[in-house]
Amino acid sequence: MKILITGGGGFLGSRLARALRARDASAKITLLDVAFPPGLDREFHCVTGDLASAEAIGNALDGDTQAIYHLAAVVSGGAEADFDLGYHVNMDGTRALLEAARKLAKPRVVYASSVAAFGGTLPDVLDDSTTPAPQTSYGTQKVIGEYLVADYTRKGFIDGRSLRLPTIVVRPGKPNLAASSFASGIIREPLAGVASECPVPDTTGVWILSPSRVVEAFLHAHDLSSSEWPTTRVVNLPGITLTVREMIEAMGRVAGREAVERVKFVPDARIQAIVKTWPVRFRTDRALAMGFKADSDFDSIVRQHLGT
Amino acid sequence: MKILITGGGGFLGSRLARALRARDASAKITLLDVAFPPGLDREFHCVTGDLASAEAIGNALDGDTQAIYHLAAVVSGGAEADFDLGYHVNMDGTRALLEAARKLAKPRVVYASSVAAFGGTLPDVLDDSTTPAPQTSYGTQKVIGEYLVADYTRKGFIDGRSLRLPTIVVRPGKPNLAASSFASGIIREPLAGVASECPVPDTTGVWILSPSRVVEAFLHAHDLSSSEWPTTRVVNLPGITLTVREMIEAMGRVAGREAVERVKFVPDARIQAIVKTWPVRFRTDRALAMGFKADSDFDSIVRQHLGT
Repeated sequence: MKILITGGGGFLGSRLARALRARDASAKITLLDVAFPPGLDREFHCVTGDLASAEAIGNALDGDTQAIYHLAAVVSGGAEADFDLGYHVNMDGTRALLEAARKLAKPRVVYASSVAAFGGTLPDVLDDSTTPAPQTSYGTQKVIGEYLVADYTRKGFIDGRSLRLPTIVVRPGKPNLAASSFASGIIREPLAGVASECPVPDTTGVWILSPSRVVEAFLHAHDLSSSEWPTTRVVNLPGITLTVREMIEAMGRVAGREAVERVKFVPDARIQAIVKTWPVRFRTDRALAMGFKADSDFDSIVRQHLGT
Repeated sequence: MKILITGGGGFLGSRLARALRARDASAKITLLDVAFPPGLDREFHCVTGDLASAEAIGNALDGDTQAIYHLAAVVSGGAEADFDLGYHVNMDGTRALLEAARKLAKPRVVYASSVAAFGGTLPDVLDDSTTPAPQTSYGTQKVIGEYLVADYTRKGFIDGRSLRLPTIVVRPGKPNLAASSFASGIIREPLAGVASECPVPDTTGVWILSPSRVVEAFLHAHDLSSSEWPTTRVVNLPGITLTVREMIEAMGRVAGREAVERVKFVPDARIQAIVKTWPVRFRTDRALAMGFKADSDFDSIVRQHLGT
């Protein structure tokens, strides 16, 4: 089986690649990204290039590619800071990928959308009927991608599946331009013995899914039969809701008081303005009925990160 | 005041142009379209060109254009028959126009969207909370345009306002590729003494607004202050619901039995497949509160068409 993962140089993309390899050692997996961590090209076929470039996509796809996991994106803070770049990669890039996919034999396309699709005046608890009203360019681009995936699917060009991802915690590595970067930072850095600045109040709620669970969700989204998807081809993934305070307390339970004391609150109005538009509580009946799963609690997410 | 109307060569665009001229004789009105009816260029500055062409848009806009009415589109049946053309005009064209508008001094942009935004599993009565789930490429492109208008507005590039138009009846002229073309045809042709073929059953419901009312809606959408719009910048226009049978009966009341007998039912599966995905009944509380108005009844719409 031939598989393409866009954004394959990223944390989730490379984890997904290893999970795909683990369940099928013969899978031919290509990763497309603007950059790769050293050594990843020894494990997978890595194509460096711009997602919106027909040439790069052409190099990354074969005529018999059967599955595409589309994770590449300029993140929320980045797309907000650079309007043109965000549209170039997140909208034009997605379109270019779908156009290339259209020339294949109806590949399954799993698209990473985001709860940043939601914003504005929201109910206390969102559900499968809540209309996306993004308050960021990133969210807008993700919603547009969902509608493209649905239309290309309806036309029979692809077999698309869009997942609205909660905030993924704990991401490894370094802080990035995502406005949600703090949600991992306040756990990852203290656990590594490093101080972390939290730009939002400790009452801020976050809708969370762990790295392991989201990789499982990508695989499950691919494996479901076409008839198990609604015509919109989009689903809000399950998650758990925690405040920043609850996250830090869980870290304290798992790793001790010293970790907690490494978090400092340093308000950042730009980050707060983006994060406050994001939804915090969901009922995800559709996703649960389709077999997607949330984490049981945040303590287990902290332990997952520690590898214990 | 400098004004651009895209799709200005069409029936609604040219009506809107005359309505704008009627209320401000000094308005400098430019029409952009792929073609124009003879003589229209004696009334308005007419620019012939592709909406998705930066050159055509450049020729149609001035640095001080203050209002843009964006009506140009490949219609529903056309966009369904030619996927690439639909995306080129309806999505790329809208994007190109918004990019050009971004370089101006925050013009008001009134965008003609459509109830074709809705489809799939629908409630009996749609309302302002119903999530768009288009079942045509045209509807998909219109929804994407709405999200772009909202994001360009949020960023302060334009002051956008999107209207989801009901089916406009009675359109003058000839049948076109719009799947809704029959809804005017079954009234227009019989009133002109010509036979008309109706491709859908007489029980088919249609959500209707008259040409006069939709032109009023465009003007009103422009005139409302920015704060009167929700952050989504989109509103479902009010309309009235009639079955094909009720429309034909109203025509009979106004114009006599002979007109009714000129309608023949000739089923067309392609048209039916599109039309059956469209919503028929709405609660338009938001639009009514904003001052948009529906027609009182269909008899008056027939008389409006007859000019009596």
